Amino acid sequence: MNDTDMKLVVVGAAGRMGQTLIRIIQETPGAKLHAAVERAGSTFIGKDAGEIAGAGFIGVPVTDDPLQAFLHAEGVIDFTSPAGTVEFAGLAAQARIVHVVGTTGCSEEDNAKIEAAGRHARVVKSGNMSLGVNLLSVLAEQAARALPVSNWDIEVLEMHHKHKVDAPSGTALLLGEAAAKGRGIDLKSQSVRTRDGHTGARPQGAIGFATLRGGSVVGEHSVILAGEGELVTLSHSALDRSIFARGAVAAALWARDKKPGFYSMLDVLGLNA
Amino acid sequence: MNDTDMKLVVVGAAGRMGQTLIRIIQETPGAKLHAAVERAGSTFIGKDAGEIAGAGFIGVPVTDDPLQAFLHAEGVIDFTSPAGTVEFAGLAAQARIVHVVGTTGCSEEDNAKIEAAGRHARVVKSGNMSLGVNLLSVLAEQAARALPVSNWDIEVLEMHHKHKVDAPSGTALLLGEAAAKGRGIDLKSQSVRTRDGHTGARPQGAIGFATLRGGSVVGEHSVILAGEGELVTLSHSALDRSIFARGAVAAALWARDKKPGFYSMLDVLGLNA
Amino acid sequence: MNDTDMKLVVVGAAGRMGQTLIRIIQETPGAKLHAAVERAGSTFIGKDAGEIAGAGFIGVPVTDDPLQAFLHAEGVIDFTSPAGTVEFAGLAAQARIVHVVGTTGCSEEDNAKIEAAGRHARVVKSGNMSLGVNLLSVLAEQAARALPVSNWDIEVLEMHHKHKVDAPSGTALLLGEAAAKGRGIDLKSQSVRTRDGHTGARPQGAIGFATLRGGSVVGEHSVILAGEGELVTLSHSALDRSIFARGAVAAALWARDKKPGFYSMLDVLGLNA
Amino acid sequence: MNDTDMKLVVVGAAGRMGQTLIRIIQETPGAKLHAAVERAGSTFIGKDAGEIAGAGFIGVPVTDDPLQAFLHAEGVIDFTSPAGTVEFAGLAAQARIVHVVGTTGCSEEDNAKIEAAGRHARVVKSGNMSLGVNLLSVLAEQAARALPVSNWDIEVLEMHHKHKVDAPSGTALLLGEAAAKGRGIDLKSQSVRTRDGHTGARPQGAIGFATLRGGSVVGEHSVILAGEGELVTLSHSALDRSIFARGAVAAALWARDKKPGFYSMLDVLGLNA
Repeated sequence: MNDTDMKLVVVGAAGRMGQTLIRIIQETPGAKLHAAVERAGSTFIGKDAGEIAGAGFIGVPVTDDPLQAFLHAEGVIDFTSPAGTVEFAGLAAQARIVHVVGTTGCSEEDNAKIEAAGRHARVVKSGNMSLGVNLLSVLAEQAARALPVSNWDIEVLEMHHKHKVDAPSGTALLLGEAAAKGRGIDLKSQSVRTRDGHTGARPQGAIGFATLRGGSVVGEHSVILAGEGELVTLSHSALDRSIFARGAVAAALWARDKKPGFYSMLDVLGLNA
Repeated sequence: MNDTDMKLVVVGAAGRMGQTLIRIIQETPGAKLHAAVERAGSTFIGKDAGEIAGAGFIGVPVTDDPLQAFLHAEGVIDFTSPAGTVEFAGLAAQARIVHVVGTTGCSEEDNAKIEAAGRHARVVKSGNMSLGVNLLSVLAEQAARALPVSNWDIEVLEMHHKHKVDAPSGTALLLGEAAAKGRGIDLKSQSVRTRDGHTGARPQGAIGFATLRGGSVVGEHSVILAGEGELVTLSHSALDRSIFARGAVAAALWARDKKPGFYSMLDVLGLNA
Repeated sequence: MNDTDMKLVVVGAAGRMGQTLIRIIQETPGAKLHAAVERAGSTFIGKDAGEIAGAGFIGVPVTDDPLQAFLHAEGVIDFTSPAGTVEFAGLAAQARIVHVVGTTGCSEEDNAKIEAAGRHARVVKSGNMSLGVNLLSVLAEQAARALPVSNWDIEVLEMHHKHKVDAPSGTALLLGEAAAKGRGIDLKSQSVRTRDGHTGARPQGAIGFATLRGGSVVGEHSVILAGEGELVTLSHSALDRSIFARGAVAAALWARDKKPGFYSMLDVLGLNA
Repeated sequence: MNDTDMKLVVVGAAGRMGQTLIRIIQETPGAKLHAAVERAGSTFIGKDAGEIAGAGFIGVPVTDDPLQAFLHAEGVIDFTSPAGTVEFAGLAAQARIVHVVGTTGCSEEDNAKIEAAGRHARVVKSGNMSLGVNLLSVLAEQAARALPVSNWDIEVLEMHHKHKVDAPSGTALLLGEAAAKGRGIDLKSQSVRTRDGHTGARPQGAIGFATLRGGSVVGEHSVILAGEGELVTLSHSALDRSIFARGAVAAALWARDKKPGFYSMLDVLGLNA
């Protein structure tokens, strides 16, 4: 850690993702924890952020004052709630710093406000902060565009742990959307979500989904392009949940010297043509 | 080819599987084509079996007289129809030779007759003649028995070409049955055949199925056993349809010196404990 | 088949690849066999090209006169030898038609001549004519460029049949080159070709290769990008050798309305940025 | 947790594996932590075992007196050192309890002593405590025995994180040994450990190894059996290192009501025919 390290604030610091962010920032060259924010009244206020996160004492007490926390910071990483994120977006814009947003479930109104903050802040927002998944979605779109629909069928396969309660996963749908975009088709009207019994032959142009559940699998996704005599398979495997925190820290470092604006992980990957 | 080669008859010789059998017999050390049988009235009667099969002239004209064909033969390989197979079973029993049966769709009555022929013939019958799939079913049963149901979830995944009209495949169900047998459960009442939308958490003890379709895939099957922190995956991949013919010829060679009886591919693999 | 079908010539028509090309042309909508060429003195001259290829009579006798064969043709597909290809390139340039070249082993001098023919012909040449492999190489290059070398390791895995006598495969090296290009490094000095015994930790930035051999596997290739907590795997699986013929016919159809020039399969895929 | 839970001692309690064992025991139904042992002079003596392990206070202070710790215990789990394990084996034999040994690097002399303890204790010892890997080795042996060597080639593929300094992994060699045993061959003289450049065709009967390194992969192993036209692949994937602790606790619970003796994980899996 040294003086040129990017000074980052973690909001929602005592939550599971907040703790992971603190650990990942501590181990990432070029980044350091500047402040850790929790809501007023939290029992963690005043405790050391490193100790909360199981990373040992680092001398940064948790605070409930984001305004003060952002003042001399260079970026804030935020996997909180839509309401929290809208508030933090305003503060990040005022402070003219980087705001990395991994929050999900934002309404269109929320998104409009977060995007507006991009006039002054450098906002990076994505539905999935993993570098690998974002890369895969770009590659899937390209593959779907390049291979002729008449001869190539697209399938999306995913596997998650036994506790997951919905199917297909949000990331599987995101990959399906990317493939549909590459083909210039509408995913909803052209997807096959289940197959059981007499299905008939595969409809040309459809994008199929299949779902596996079991054990403690963090997340496996494959986009399969099946042609006559050959298969192209593009896969992502998540080994632990820290990849979302790692992606967010990478996004903050990337955005440090960018102009104010509203960015996605594709910009971070240099893949936004 | 030499005098000690096993003399084999192919019935249904002009069909797609019959032709493949002729080619595989020609290239298998220890086996030779003794006769090729088609139904009376076939336009192939009298033509050379090798030429029909694209294997070059071999000097065996197709005949419509199975009785004569079986007379000095040592085995017959049969992927015909239930009615044909019942008739050939009787003739094979009379000739006291090997009868390898890959015919599907036999009724209980048919099966009883075929099994009865095992008093004099050495009958080998299986729903899938591939060595690999039969091996996989035994391994899946053992794995399902060994790993405690409380911590291990079982999933069966299959992929086939875009023309296949039903799901899951017969082989996927066969593998599911093997796993269910290993666990001592009833597959029908404990299987999850589709997942879409809000599914809730995975029911403990269930066996899940997932189906992919695309391109010209001959047949991919996996049995996945997912535990806390680890996965065991048992897979079979069919690269071309000749594997069923190869398995049948291997079964014939195996049965050559066995006692009369009714055998399965598990016996051929030495896995019938 | 109709009047607007692209009229294609197959050179080396009686070879294994020539026969496959004839069959694939016959079954591809928009293409038809115009002529089939073999070298003077071949025993196949005068025989029907369809019958040679096992596709039934099609009324196109094999000829030893390429000049005549190219005269009213629109394209020629060529998996012959460097010497043959140089000759055919000259004739294709004269006839101002499409020349698809899958020939391997050309010298720099040969390549210069073939490329020069691109002033008049539309030449498409590639070391591997499969659409899938060419797509994979582009995606591998992009992935290698997007993911930071400090955190992501690249490995190339391949499997081929037991008869293959060299390792790694040419396609594995082509994929390694694509990844090296994405990273801006030199593959030769930064590749790890074997690992056995005490290897030490993985050198950062290296591209590793691993080779499997067995059975009748046509060709499996994977580029694996392994980061902290996640993996991205890009794979190609060849199910049969017809994919090279299919890719060549697709290239011919693509080039039909293009300007004279020297193209690669990346142009055919629309991926040559 | 209740009175019938099996009372387990963890030796080497403050080490990484010791801590994992404490956590896994706490979350396993039917097991409870009875004592936690560290060497005399450790700074952890007297501290709460649960707090050390990040599992919260559980009221079991770390002790340096194994004799006392074993007195009313039912089992001890031991991933310490050869010297420590020999000592604990003697104490476990005296106490006539279960001794689960995951210690590696024992000499023949050490092993003789540990085995001798099996006259009074129920010892379970294995080179790899994961249920999945042990299962895989049994299945690989069976598959290798069932499939004829003339047509089936065996390959072992493994992938581990970038920090691993040797190749192939011990588990890959263990799986190779299992396959060699199934075939009745000597692994050392019949293995292919590297392939690079002109290798010639694959030697029949050989067992090949291939190694991948990258990222943070915990451990992936596959045994591939490649025949003419088909592949059987048996794979194990470790998602986190807790699987060794889980396997050890499962072994202790299994051994609770067994007779004194020297057992392996195959006995625990019910696969030791």
